[in-house]
Parts: sequence; structure tokens; C-alpha cells
Amino acid sequence: MAKSKVKSKLKIIPLGGLGEIGKNITVLEYENDIIVVDCGLGFPDDDMLGVDLVIPDVSYLEKNIEKVRGFVITHGHEDHIGALPYVLKTVNAPVFGTRLSVGIVANKLEEHTFSEKPQLNCVEAGDVVKLGVFSVEFVRVNHSIADACALSIKTPHGVVFFSGDFKLDLTPVEGKIMDIPRIGEIGNQGVTMLLCESTNVERPGYTPSEKKVGKSLDGILQQYADKRVIIATFSSNVHRVQQIINASAAHGRKVAVTGRSMINIVKTAIELDYMTVPDGTLIDINEIKRFRDDQLTIITTGSQGEPMSALYRMAFAEHDKVQLGPNDLVVISANPIPGNEKFIGNIINELFRKGVGVLYDALADVHVSGHACQEELKLMHALTKPKYFMPVHGEYRHLMNHKQLAQEMGMAENHIFIPEIGKILEIDKDGARFNGTVPSGKILVDGYGVGDVGNIVLRDRRHLSQDGLIVVVATVDIDERMLLSGPDVVSRGFVYVREAEELMDEVRTIARDALLDCLDKNITDWAELKRCVKDDLSKFLYQKTKRKPMILPVVMNV
Amino acid sequence: MAKSKVKSKLKIIPLGGLGEIGKNITVLEYENDIIVVDCGLGFPDDDMLGVDLVIPDVSYLEKNIEKVRGFVITHGHEDHIGALPYVLKTVNAPVFGTRLSVGIVANKLEEHTFSEKPQLNCVEAGDVVKLGVFSVEFVRVNHSIADACALSIKTPHGVVFFSGDFKLDLTPVEGKIMDIPRIGEIGNQGVTMLLCESTNVERPGYTPSEKKVGKSLDGILQQYADKRVIIATFSSNVHRVQQIINASAAHGRKVAVTGRSMINIVKTAIELDYMTVPDGTLIDINEIKRFRDDQLTIITTGSQGEPMSALYRMAFAEHDKVQLGPNDLVVISANPIPGNEKFIGNIINELFRKGVGVLYDALADVHVSGHACQEELKLMHALTKPKYFMPVHGEYRHLMNHKQLAQEMGMAENHIFIPEIGKILEIDKDGARFNGTVPSGKILVDGYGVGDVGNIVLRDRRHLSQDGLIVVVATVDIDERMLLSGPDVVSRGFVYVREAEELMDEVRTIARDALLDCLDKNITDWAELKRCVKDDLSKFLYQKTKRKPMILPVVMNV
Repeated sequence: MAKSKVKSKLKIIPLGGLGEIGKNITVLEYENDIIVVDCGLGFPDDDMLGVDLVIPDVSYLEKNIEKVRGFVITHGHEDHIGALPYVLKTVNAPVFGTRLSVGIVANKLEEHTFSEKPQLNCVEAGDVVKLGVFSVEFVRVNHSIADACALSIKTPHGVVFFSGDFKLDLTPVEGKIMDIPRIGEIGNQGVTMLLCESTNVERPGYTPSEKKVGKSLDGILQQYADKRVIIATFSSNVHRVQQIINASAAHGRKVAVTGRSMINIVKTAIELDYMTVPDGTLIDINEIKRFRDDQLTIITTGSQGEPMSALYRMAFAEHDKVQLGPNDLVVISANPIPGNEKFIGNIINELFRKGVGVLYDALADVHVSGHACQEELKLMHALTKPKYFMPVHGEYRHLMNHKQLAQEMGMAENHIFIPEIGKILEIDKDGARFNGTVPSGKILVDGYGVGDVGNIVLRDRRHLSQDGLIVVVATVDIDERMLLSGPDVVSRGFVYVREAEELMDEVRTIARDALLDCLDKNITDWAELKRCVKDDLSKFLYQKTKRKPMILPVVMNV
Repeated sequence: MAKSKVKSKLKIIPLGGLGEIGKNITVLEYENDIIVVDCGLGFPDDDMLGVDLVIPDVSYLEKNIEKVRGFVITHGHEDHIGALPYVLKTVNAPVFGTRLSVGIVANKLEEHTFSEKPQLNCVEAGDVVKLGVFSVEFVRVNHSIADACALSIKTPHGVVFFSGDFKLDLTPVEGKIMDIPRIGEIGNQGVTMLLCESTNVERPGYTPSEKKVGKSLDGILQQYADKRVIIATFSSNVHRVQQIINASAAHGRKVAVTGRSMINIVKTAIELDYMTVPDGTLIDINEIKRFRDDQLTIITTGSQGEPMSALYRMAFAEHDKVQLGPNDLVVISANPIPGNEKFIGNIINELFRKGVGVLYDALADVHVSGHACQEELKLMHALTKPKYFMPVHGEYRHLMNHKQLAQEMGMAENHIFIPEIGKILEIDKDGARFNGTVPSGKILVDGYGVGDVGNIVLRDRRHLSQDGLIVVVATVDIDERMLLSGPDVVSRGFVYVREAEELMDEVRTIARDALLDCLDKNITDWAELKRCVKDDLSKFLYQKTKRKPMILPVVMNV
């Protein structure tokens, strides 16, 4: 690492996921080599009406496609891998990750078509992958999905260490603890830059072990031995699901699985040997009628209250296989992700209405986080002893609190870099600094459309959602300055028309007057005609109703 | 209370506020007398797009207007008084409440016009108001607004006790503790029915005293002595505001107030002697430029992240009086109401981006609840010793958990009644039971419109918000079976048209083909013509885009 001889700059460029949750993707670039760490998707904000997914703008990678050596993946969560099926279409480079991560990616790719099939490569914790000038070491960490890794990346300017999402679990379900010795070794050899996740930086102490939930769930199965137990959790939490299966088997229960992603991940996890199911324990959801309630556990999706998830359908009596009643206990083994509180609340209320027993975070210890709390974050800093630090993965406030934590541990403020999407962090022998930007941003996915919904479309959707619209249609003979037909008025989402006939009559009259007035004045410019109708109506309607519906005048010439 | 002689039934009818937060209003009826306890408004759910407020359907009261003796108000929060300005327009009956509650109501009424001015009456805790067959005693409780009361209502079938919203604060800011002895006395004399709030029933223990926040805020002013401190809290929390003023005065700071409701309530509270401000402490927001940062505290609205609140405007640099920077500390002295987490998060992130210091619930003890936790609820049950119990004020899950708490205290399950809006609970000498319903429901307020937005309008707004709309306009000569003009196609909120010209061309062609096809087939029925266009376009667009925009065909005849 004779740094003085290295002339070029190392660039670290986040293309997503910073300052907000989701869409983790970071570019490492040195001369003719680029590697990409993670490639996640995000979910739409409340004001992105009708949008299904948010993926990163990767035009920078498309432009530099010949440099891209590969994608390295820390773990298989949506916000770290979810954009791969979209990005690989234009940036087809090999993908490297542990077996479960790659298995989940493979599953996702099946739903998409590619001109050239993406190349997926399995590695194990401890493996080193050489990609151009970079060599990437996968280092075991604990997280709420199996086989998660930190990445220690050797570059011409020293090691860049990505924590990935992690926690320290000293009694992990599958027996493998975060590789503290190796991280310490890497730290001792020198880390130039640490990129560390920030999700739980506001929480003091340590995150409890996943085993704590297992114990708790076991106690619940014991206590409610006569009931059918339905447990909702994140489908990707393979260890949680394993613990539910173990506890169920121990209590002589069969386990059925429902919800598309839960079925997919359980299948993948079993195939790849990440899950061990005692013989005869797992049954098809169609078989549950053959068993008594006390012989059954059902594992389901919907722990975030997602509309149309399996749990949602059960709660609202729309699930074709599971009908809930007073002999059921639903356990929601998850905490609400911010923004989902109301969705989950609705489901819980509905379950109570049906007389179903419900256990959730407010009432029982049925969940632990997968992310490091303050003391674990400090441990990561202490082990890696980085020269520079970039807090990642969290909202802006988390990044700033993480910065403060690093400063409290003795790091100089000017060695800490708060990232922004597209902003280039440059490292060379003289130090590190932000310098320039690359094109970046959010691409909205709506149905089959990738990127065809932008700010104007969203602004219109918001406008329409608030006060609805009024369409005014008229046919004129512009040469004769005559109104031939209409104006007809159609409204949607504005007022209940049957009870507002008078108002709509007034609208028609005002539109008619505006048009005739224009024609009288020899105004024949279409835009001007429409503007007159729109202005007069807007003014009238705001005064009358204090609302601002979208007004769409359509004037046709015959 | 010689019950055996009383033949008629006492009816208790909630018209709102049960099974959800907001809109508390309960009717008590006996023969020719009706009184109404509280009259609150609710805020729209996420799916009530464009709706401003939700008020209760009071057609039952309108129909029985000659029976209505008055409204009795427990305290001055929106969800207990907010619908009065709307309801008093059609159900004009005297209102009774403590001075602060009535003062706040009076403020609200000023923004409305009435054919006959509503009659407002001030009472004090301990007062008894006779209204027809009922006599209503106001009993002091603690809450996050001053001068809150429980109501002990004597009826021909014994006492009905409304807890109102309450907590037990043994070191209250203004020195008046919940009247435990009086509640105990009432309990000893016999309570037929307790209606008790359920907000915090999921929380064990006791809610801490409001004074704890005062201490904490004092410590913050000490610690950040060199900064300007901006504190956001609920405007109605008069004691919180008082404590901020006290601490500020003690640290030699002037206090300015911003945000419409904050200014209103502080003005009302001072006028009515609920707040004591040391001479010269309170300054106008326009005067802040005359003082150094360390001499200033600013109290503001926006603690729930409400868009366009004063704090929101400060955070996004839209406040005309307060520009925030690195020498400011913002304290958010409130917990997010479920559903508001993201709004508050956005403001906190934006403040951090501006380099402003921020303290909030995750980082400091800057808020306590105004509602009773489990042990306080048990105290209320233990003191009132009711024969029957109806949990109120909370989501359905809170009511059910409150039911369980009552059962754990020894109450028989069949003495507990989970209310529903409009459902009549009947009490007579033989016991209590649900029997029948009255008309009830939600009335949506949107702009000046009260009740003109219903399910159809909301369904259309939702549809428009998800995929936008396409308007297809054509002029035909129906007698000649000729297409004279168009079809023109206008879309909003669907796709960014400039990048989808080809798609819009196809839309036009399909609409044209559909119309011509109909005319060829001698289809001249307008509805049928439109249906053809709509069906063909829907099919095409879903196949092509996986979206379902609203399609509005307008066909005109010349």
C-alpha cells in the first residue's frame, strides 16, 4: 500500500440510500475499475401517489459500463438487492454474495426478462473476490437475515470497510457470531474509510439476541396451547421463522406458511440449507383443515399491515384458506417501520373485532431489531479504527447522530463525511474530501413504467387527490364565432353531484358565459379560450366552496 | 334513587369517538331529556383524501331538538369540543364547561356565523348543573390541558360517571390534584356506569408528572445557555407553555410565541388567568431581532410536523419572522400521534440539514403523556366501583385491552359494554343491555362543504390519485352517424406525456376506432358509446402499462 506512489484518486459515490431508508447503492471507482456495493430499492413516500417502487438512477454506471467489474452484496434485504432486476437490465455485470443473498436475487430475476442472463456468484464469509483493482473480503456479521456480511474492500488507497446492516448477536440462532476477531485484525492493519449503518443510532445499549424472541414465542405457544397460533413476521427473517418452526415442533404443532414472499423465502432457505425443518412439521396451507387448532401454527406475511398481504386478508375475512375466530391467537412478531403504524393498527383493531386474540409489541416481547444500537456501533468503530468515517443507511438525523457518536469516540469532525446522493467523496494520498457530483436521483416504478412518472405527474395526482376535477367540454365553430354544443360539465372527486346540481348548473353557466364572451371579443386562440374558462371557474369555485379542483377545459372546433 | 319506581329506560348513545381517536360525543337520554357529553371532531384518515375535518352525524339530536337540554364539556381539546361550531348551528343548546374550555369554544365560534348566538356557561370544578332530569357534577382531574374535569351525572338510574381524558398528577403545575376524595365519595354512594378513557391502557405503571418535563426543559435551557431555543408543543398544553415561560424567565430569556393556535390559546389563557407571565417576559415575534439568541425562547406550533405549521415553515425556511441556523436549538416537546411519525421525521431531518440542534423524544425527556396509564386506570375503577363499565376513547384494541383490565379487577364480563357509534345502551331496573341504534356516522368537512364529500367522491379521488385520468372528447353528428371532431385526448397524472407521445397516439387511435365501430353498428345510445370507448381503452392501457387510469369519455352531438 505504498500510498505515495498511487497518483489517482479513489472515488466513493453513493447513488442512493443516504439520508433516507432504502435504496442502498454505493459506487467505488479507481481509474478504470468500478465496483458497486449493494443495489437496493426504496418504497414510495406518501406523496408519491400511485408509485410502486423507487429505484436509483444508475445512468452514471450505464455511461461507464465498460468499467463496471461487478456488484457485491452484503445481504438479501430488498433495500440492498431489490433494484438489481431493474439495474442489471442496463448494467449487466456479475453479482457476488453469500448463498442466501444470491438465492433471493435469483428468485427475483425469474420475474424479469433479460437480453443476456445476469451472472450470479456465490461466496462464503471469509472469501475474497478480486474485481479489477479491488479485492473484496466478505466478513460475517449478524443481522435479521441469515448470511449477512460486512465488506472489507482493499483499494490502492487502503481498506474501505462497509459494515452493511449488522448487529452483534452472541447467541445467534444458527451459531455464527459476527467475526469480531477478523474485523479487529482488519482494523489493526489499517482502515482508511468506514461506512457504517446508522439505523438504531438513537437507541442506547445493545440490541438483544434473536434467541430472546424464540424464548418468548415458545412461552406463547405454551401459554396458548389450546389455540391455533398465527405468527406474522418479515419473510426474510429466516432465523425467526426457524425459531417458530422449532418451537412449534416442540409443542407438537404442524406449521403452514402463507403469503407469497414467505412461501418463496422459506422454499429458498430450505433448498439452500439455511433452515432445518423436522420431518412432517411443514404442511401445505391446504392441509390445515385436517388438524385441530391446537395442532397448528401458521406463519404469515403482513407484519407491517400491508394491504392485501396474507395477514390483512385474514383480518378482513378475504383469505381463502384461513378464517380467523375466537380460537385463534395472532402474534405480530415485528415492530412497525415508521409510517406503517396505522396500517398495523387497523389490522389489530379488526382482529380484536373478530374476537381474535392478538399479541404485539406493545403487549409482549415478540420482536428484536436486526440493527446495531449505540454500544454495538461503538464496537464497530473501536474494532475498525478508521481514519475517515461516513455514516450511512438512515435518515439524515440518524447520520448526524452517528457523526456525533463518532466524535464522542475521538474522531475529528473533519474526518467525518455526511454523504449525499451523487456526491463524490475523493480519497488520495493527501486526504479525503467531497469533490463534484455525478448524475443521480430516484426513478419511480409504476406498473410496467420505469421512470415515466415524474414530478409533473405526481403534482397532478396530488392535485386530483385533494379536490378532484371538473372537465368542461364545448364545441365551437371558430370561424363563425359560434358555440355549437355544450359546454358539458363532468366532475369527479369534487362534490357528490346529485346533491350539488345547482352548483353544477352555475358552473355550466359561468363556462358558457366565459366562452361566449371570448367569442364576442373575437378571441380565437385556443389557449386563451381555455384560460378564460379556467380562470372564471377557479375564482367562482374557490369563493363558493374553498376548494381548488383541477379544471380541464376542452374546446373543439368543427 | 328508588329504582323500582323508575319505569323508563336511561339511554347512553355514543355518536362518535369510539373505536377510534377523535370525535368524542355521547348522548344521555331519559324520557324527555337529552344531554350531550362533549362534541369533538376527528381528523381524516389517510384514505379520506382532501378532507379537512370529520364531525359526527347528529341527525338524532336534530330530530329530538326539543329534548336537548345542553352540552356538557369535560375539557377544551379539539376531539372533545371541535365539532361544536358545526353542531350548534342545527342543535343550538346551552354549553357548560370550565372557564378555559368555554374560552376556547368561544374563540372557535367567532369564526362561524349563527342565526342565534349559542349560549356558553362557565362552571368550576365542584359545581353541579341541573339539566332536565340530569344533574351534572364537574369533578377535577389532571390532563394535558388546564381545568379538565370528569363528569358525575345523576340520572334516575343512578350515577353515570365520565372520566373524560385524565391522568393523576400528584405534583401538578398549577397545584390542583385530581379530586380523588370526591371521586371516592361518589363511588361509595354508588356508580351505575363508568365510561372511562382508554388511550394509554397498553402502558403499564403511571404517567409521570408534567413537572418532570419542566425540570427537563429547565436543564436544557441551562445546558444550551448560548443558543436561541425554539420549543414546539401542543398549543393547548397551557401548563407546558407556563413551564417554558417560567424556565425562560429564570434564565433571563424573553419568550415569543408563533403559530396561529399557539397565539390564540396563550392569549386566552392569560386573559382567563390560567397563565402567569412575569412582567416583560412575553414579547411579540416582531421584536425578536432586538435580542441576542441567548436571550430568546420561541414557543411554536408544529410539534406533530403539520405541513404549514410555524415549525414546518421555520424548518423549510418559509417563516417570515424566524430564520433558523446553527445557533438554534429546536426542542420538540411532544410525542408523535400515530400516523404523524413521518411528518415529524421530515422536519427533524430538515433541521439537521440546516445545522440546527434538535432534541426530541428519542434523545431527551421532553414530553409526558396527558393520559392515564394502567395503574391510574385501575385507580379510577377502584374509586368509582361501577356496576357497569364502558371503555371509551381509544381504538378498538384499546377498548378491548381496557375490558380485560376491568375483568382482571374482578368485573364480570357481561357487565362490560364495548360501544359502537350509534348503538344504544339501555339501563333500567333489570340491568343494562344494547338495544337498537340511532342514525350516526361521519360527516366530512372539505373547505366550506359540510357533508358534500362522501364515499363516491372519495373513491374517485383515490382512483385519480393512483393512476391519474384520461379524458377522451369527441363531437359526433349522431343522425348522420358521423364523427365530426376528435377524439381529443387529454391526460393528467398518468404518464409524462412528452415521453409517451406514441402511447397517446395509440390511445387516440383506439378511441377513434371504438367510436367509428359503434357508429357503423348504428349504436347511438350515449352511455353505450362511452362504455365502448372506456372498455377498449382500459383493456389496452392495463395490458400496456399495468395501470388503471380513470377514463372519462365525453361525446357531444352537434
